[in-house]
Amino acid sequence: MNFTQKLGATIEKNNSLLCVGLDPVLEKIPQQFKSKEHPLFDFNKFIIDQTHDLVCAFKPNSAFYEAYGVSGIEQLKQTIDYINHQYTGIPVILDAKRGDIGNTNEGYVKFAFDYLEADAITVMPYMGIESLDVFFERKRKGVIIGCHSSNPGAREFQEILVDQRPLYVHVAEKVFAEHGDNPNCLLFMGATYPEQIRIVREIVSDMTLLVPGVGAQEGVLEETLRGGLNSEKKGLIINSSRGIIYAENPREEANKLKEAINKYR
Amino acid sequence: MNFTQKLGATIEKNNSLLCVGLDPVLEKIPQQFKSKEHPLFDFNKFIIDQTHDLVCAFKPNSAFYEAYGVSGIEQLKQTIDYINHQYTGIPVILDAKRGDIGNTNEGYVKFAFDYLEADAITVMPYMGIESLDVFFERKRKGVIIGCHSSNPGAREFQEILVDQRPLYVHVAEKVFAEHGDNPNCLLFMGATYPEQIRIVREIVSDMTLLVPGVGAQEGVLEETLRGGLNSEKKGLIINSSRGIIYAENPREEANKLKEAINKYR
Repeated sequence: MNFTQKLGATIEKNNSLLCVGLDPVLEKIPQQFKSKEHPLFDFNKFIIDQTHDLVCAFKPNSAFYEAYGVSGIEQLKQTIDYINHQYTGIPVILDAKRGDIGNTNEGYVKFAFDYLEADAITVMPYMGIESLDVFFERKRKGVIIGCHSSNPGAREFQEILVDQRPLYVHVAEKVFAEHGDNPNCLLFMGATYPEQIRIVREIVSDMTLLVPGVGAQEGVLEETLRGGLNSEKKGLIINSSRGIIYAENPREEANKLKEAINKYR
Repeated sequence: MNFTQKLGATIEKNNSLLCVGLDPVLEKIPQQFKSKEHPLFDFNKFIIDQTHDLVCAFKPNSAFYEAYGVSGIEQLKQTIDYINHQYTGIPVILDAKRGDIGNTNEGYVKFAFDYLEADAITVMPYMGIESLDVFFERKRKGVIIGCHSSNPGAREFQEILVDQRPLYVHVAEKVFAEHGDNPNCLLFMGATYPEQIRIVREIVSDMTLLVPGVGAQEGVLEETLRGGLNSEKKGLIINSSRGIIYAENPREEANKLKEAINKYR
């Protein structure tokens, strides 16, 4: 199965658009994991076991593992291996925001898809959509292109006006024009800018959007879903990381968010 | 010494603006290294030994190491350790084109500066200059912001017109306005677009520019230096990777390029 088929099957099976972000920080994980040989992996394993039937995908962010060098990368691989073997069928998105020139991106392709065996990767489009060709050559893998991020400074360049329209709109249009017929091509859109999600939904038809940055505010969630769902009441992957993995009861928190999402579908 | 002090001292000592890109691919390195336990590192060691007195910096690109997973990261660390211990004083630029939201970038900061002990990192500005704050918090380290890349598709977004001026000009202006007084803040500009280098030089005063993508064409090199050198006949780090590391005689090739650069200074 390719990325989108895995995603679709898991959405159906678990009736969920929730993605759990596996972004462990050693100082923040519960005490009982800290003394383990592979604390990040053991913590992730716990989170995965607690939430596997509530999610449509898992999304480890590479930065949180790179912070620990070889040991971190090893635990990132263990984490993805664990999902691939224990919970076959749940897609894994490597959040890496990679983007270099074509020849160099080949290294990132090998890292994400051959070494880690992730199902999808997040990438950045600013060197030109052409620069991403080597990612798209892996036709079964998901390529999730950065369109609008969730941070406070996101507007500085992403909303800079080009012909009276913000840059992220041009990115969405170009991606849709060139890869709109590829079901494994997605965009990512920060949850903190729901109006922008609505605008992008109008541009990209039923294309799936990865939406990171969902926090505590349910109001934003409603607005995100209202504007972001596609014609099939899907087309969104709603990611939460810290809000779930550091919750006192991660399963309960994941279930709450899954249900909150479904309320608006 | 901070990054820029190391860079300045090495430029003087070796009378060179040449940076050698350490971007090894297993299939392409000479036969005698392939059977070694750490082929990438052993090959890099050879290149470093051959060129250390001809360069102002070394620049490994993370993608070429990530391609081999844990083993690649291990050899990336060995490579930087080797330079730091054997050739103390030569700055190491981690070419990684990283860029995520602030909280997440902390992982990349730890990877580049604490784990690998590189002196500088390349980053991407499109989530907003604010998103890069955690890199700038390491005041002794170099932060090299992507302004215009060297690939064929570079113009698609980087030259999209905003108020009649291309986006990369806005990036250069904003970086200069916010970090122009920080000697450890640089921009990178692909060598294949020398006219754009000239334009950026006019914007950023004496700020140093990392210029990757120098190929065989000496004409472009002359144009790059003519438009890119700052008022002190420095301010450029001219990087060549494949052209040197895969040359029959890497030392001779590095020396040739170093001299060609100096001819136009």
